Amino acid sequence: MPTKDPIPKDYVNVHALSRHARILGGISSLLEWDQETYMPPAGASNRAEQLKTLAGMTHKERTSKKFANALARLIDLKSGKIVSKNLSPEQQAAARVWRRDYLHDTALPRNFVEQFAKLSSQAQLAWREAKKNNAFQHFAPFLDKIVSMCRKKADYLGYSHHPYDALLDLYEPETTSKEISMLFNPLRKEIVSLLKKITSTKQVDDRFLFGKFDQEKQLELGRRILEDMGYDMAKGRLDISTHPFSSASHPSDSRVTTRIHPTSVISNISVVLHEGGHGMYEMGLPEEHYGSPLAEAISYGIHESQSRWWETRIGQSKPFWQHYLPLLQKAFKGKFDSLTPDALYRAVNKVEPSLIRVEADEVTYSLHVILRFELEMGLIDGSLRIRDLPEAWNAKMQDMLGITPQTNSEGCLQDIHWSMGGFGYFPTYTLGNLYASHLFKGFAKEHPDWEKRVAKGELLFIKNWLHDNVYRHGRRYTAQELLKKVTGSAFTSAPFTEYLNKKYQEVYKLTQR
Amino acid sequence: MPTKDPIPKDYVNVHALSRHARILGGISSLLEWDQETYMPPAGASNRAEQLKTLAGMTHKERTSKKFANALARLIDLKSGKIVSKNLSPEQQAAARVWRRDYLHDTALPRNFVEQFAKLSSQAQLAWREAKKNNAFQHFAPFLDKIVSMCRKKADYLGYSHHPYDALLDLYEPETTSKEISMLFNPLRKEIVSLLKKITSTKQVDDRFLFGKFDQEKQLELGRRILEDMGYDMAKGRLDISTHPFSSASHPSDSRVTTRIHPTSVISNISVVLHEGGHGMYEMGLPEEHYGSPLAEAISYGIHESQSRWWETRIGQSKPFWQHYLPLLQKAFKGKFDSLTPDALYRAVNKVEPSLIRVEADEVTYSLHVILRFELEMGLIDGSLRIRDLPEAWNAKMQDMLGITPQTNSEGCLQDIHWSMGGFGYFPTYTLGNLYASHLFKGFAKEHPDWEKRVAKGELLFIKNWLHDNVYRHGRRYTAQELLKKVTGSAFTSAPFTEYLNKKYQEVYKLTQR
Repeated sequence: MPTKDPIPKDYVNVHALSRHARILGGISSLLEWDQETYMPPAGASNRAEQLKTLAGMTHKERTSKKFANALARLIDLKSGKIVSKNLSPEQQAAARVWRRDYLHDTALPRNFVEQFAKLSSQAQLAWREAKKNNAFQHFAPFLDKIVSMCRKKADYLGYSHHPYDALLDLYEPETTSKEISMLFNPLRKEIVSLLKKITSTKQVDDRFLFGKFDQEKQLELGRRILEDMGYDMAKGRLDISTHPFSSASHPSDSRVTTRIHPTSVISNISVVLHEGGHGMYEMGLPEEHYGSPLAEAISYGIHESQSRWWETRIGQSKPFWQHYLPLLQKAFKGKFDSLTPDALYRAVNKVEPSLIRVEADEVTYSLHVILRFELEMGLIDGSLRIRDLPEAWNAKMQDMLGITPQTNSEGCLQDIHWSMGGFGYFPTYTLGNLYASHLFKGFAKEHPDWEKRVAKGELLFIKNWLHDNVYRHGRRYTAQELLKKVTGSAFTSAPFTEYLNKKYQEVYKLTQR
Repeated sequence: MPTKDPIPKDYVNVHALSRHARILGGISSLLEWDQETYMPPAGASNRAEQLKTLAGMTHKERTSKKFANALARLIDLKSGKIVSKNLSPEQQAAARVWRRDYLHDTALPRNFVEQFAKLSSQAQLAWREAKKNNAFQHFAPFLDKIVSMCRKKADYLGYSHHPYDALLDLYEPETTSKEISMLFNPLRKEIVSLLKKITSTKQVDDRFLFGKFDQEKQLELGRRILEDMGYDMAKGRLDISTHPFSSASHPSDSRVTTRIHPTSVISNISVVLHEGGHGMYEMGLPEEHYGSPLAEAISYGIHESQSRWWETRIGQSKPFWQHYLPLLQKAFKGKFDSLTPDALYRAVNKVEPSLIRVEADEVTYSLHVILRFELEMGLIDGSLRIRDLPEAWNAKMQDMLGITPQTNSEGCLQDIHWSMGGFGYFPTYTLGNLYASHLFKGFAKEHPDWEKRVAKGELLFIKNWLHDNVYRHGRRYTAQELLKKVTGSAFTSAPFTEYLNKKYQEVYKLTQR
């Protein structure tokens, strides 16, 4: 048939209602972006009220009778059986996700949601103070309440095996804690073993990456890299914020921020690649489906796979630096004159056990995540008591990374996530790395010459591949379905560990086992 | 009594509903600010949809049954009689304004509002093209429709004498076209007479105000002046935009923008004083009343009085430049070394008939506005036909300012207002000047030494006076009530014309009549 089938009216109705709510969500994103970039400091409490108002209205629309009735004409809300006869496969997929989200949105009583929001707002303040003063005991009572409420949340949401599953499912749909354990346990062993080899050999030299680097020049370089990647500056922008982030209110308005490190020249480049990966995913979602699941990202893990793809698989590859070293030399005259691409490649891939997750290298990063996952499981099922958390944290750090924090501020108080009630979030960081490597297999198969092309400064073909294989599908597939579809084989962590072992054998000139 | 009376519950209810709608309005303001400052260009159509969505929701809340029922417990919606027994005088004032706004909001059928919005959006595009190509005939059909719809709007809103009254009332409540005519006719004569004297004497020299001036230094100076005025940088910011504006979403978040003129050093300073005046008014509205009329600006005219107050009465005064000349000399080394405050004062007050309203000096500015008012009246009552507009414009320009535009682009196509359907808006620009001078009488009486203090660089006492006399009242009083309250006498244009005559006699060394 030369023309497309007309979109069924019942589908159009659901999409219109959903789109309205999505627009409000997009407005919230812009307000949050402004809050972290340009908002006058005294505007904070008004901003909180604006965001609360929008969140309330969005939730109301997403859980309205009107929406439920419209959706029920596409899919049976109880059984999940498609009831509309003329939906295309992708419209059916959208209907299933709409139902899934609707059941989530209505599972939690509004009263509970409000209490949770209030508690997490208080807990964040308490956490900030406790971290500043290294006073875990002041945060502990809040964490205790947060954990209780997360357990209650899991009860509301429902689960078959472990309450953690219900929480995890919010960030990584259709994934269980058992599956995570089965991934993380062998991964942990692989990494610890690789790390032992690395730490017992000669450390690489990366001192030349530190010093004073002009802020404007760094930003210019950041913009250049973003444009090389295919990030469309007409649909986005690069600003500075304390904590870098990406924020999209629509595929046509997907912004990123960076942080200019006082001494490192690589920090900004890594951040730009990372946030650019997130931002391009949002830019690449199909506009015509805006407001439906077909224009949404699949999961936190898949989102993170996009950022880590660019940050590590591309930005920490040798061909990348073969191309960008001359640009670095040009931008910072006199600083890198005698440097070789190989020495630079090794320096940006320096591995060193450290206390802080967000500063960790590619090898040790997952250990930080695994540690948190294991502790979260214990806290949620009650096998780990709050008061024993600092000790458990330190023991695991010593066990996995061979170092012990001197203070809780650089230990179990370092991340904001728990104070926000974000139990279940951390695993998606490592899933992102695993997914990226799995996807990369599919990419490398299709582009066996990718290294040659990257060394010549070509990056656009990578974005195009991601667009065709990831962006354009929205939530048409689950993470697992997509990973299988792209590579032809079911997802495993093998591509990631193979990549790590191979790469770091070269970087650290390790002898083969 | 030592404690305040408790706020009546019925009042609290209305305030809460009104506040909710006001929050949405504040969010729209931020979105508009972003649109003019940092939004990526491709984000425009998504932004339009966001704004339309918010406008629809705001209108729905402001006209809801729920709101009407709550308001009817304070005030009879038909008669305007206060029905709640325990309202304070200011709560009664708020109830009256709520009713006024409610009647306005419900007077126009939603269908009409949507059609009007659509037409004005198309007309703006057509106007932009027509102005660019000097093709009035392409804009004329749109203007014709706009005028028809404005007449219809007036019918919906209702009026006693002239349909223009209904339109004017939207911008300047409780003011009629007859009152405007009675102000503008003698004003026109006074100004034309003064202008004749000025143009027949020796022109002042302002060439030293033009050249190349560093953008960063100009912005720094702008921020310095804003802070000197009492504009709180914790509650606002200064950015650059093509067309300068001020935008407040809350008293704690009231931002201004400026434009850096390619050759003039004064442009940015004037703009900063002007927009700062608008911005400080919004900052000074009482936060505790946010969402009620008691935290809103009285009218467009009063708002403009605040901007023109700072721009002209302060920023074009001699003592102001006695203080700021040294700062100018310091910022732009070598440019103003041999300049005297008197020469600078005369230069910034140079009067010269010109074609473009927004670039006009203080004397000729009102003539531009009066011209538009007279033409608007004719268009709305049908005595002036669209096709005769360019000729009528040019004739009036020649008559009042002694010059004739060579093209319609610098004639009747110069302003955006008509394409937006903003008939009734222009008069408020001149009202702002008149109000400012009327208010200034009250200020100067209380601060007879104001010139001495300004010459020493004191500006804060001016803001404090405006706060006590204008900002803090919100819409407690109508414009006329406030003007009388502040000065003890009813509003007239005399203070403005006296000020102009006295000032320009000095600037141009005119002989007394």
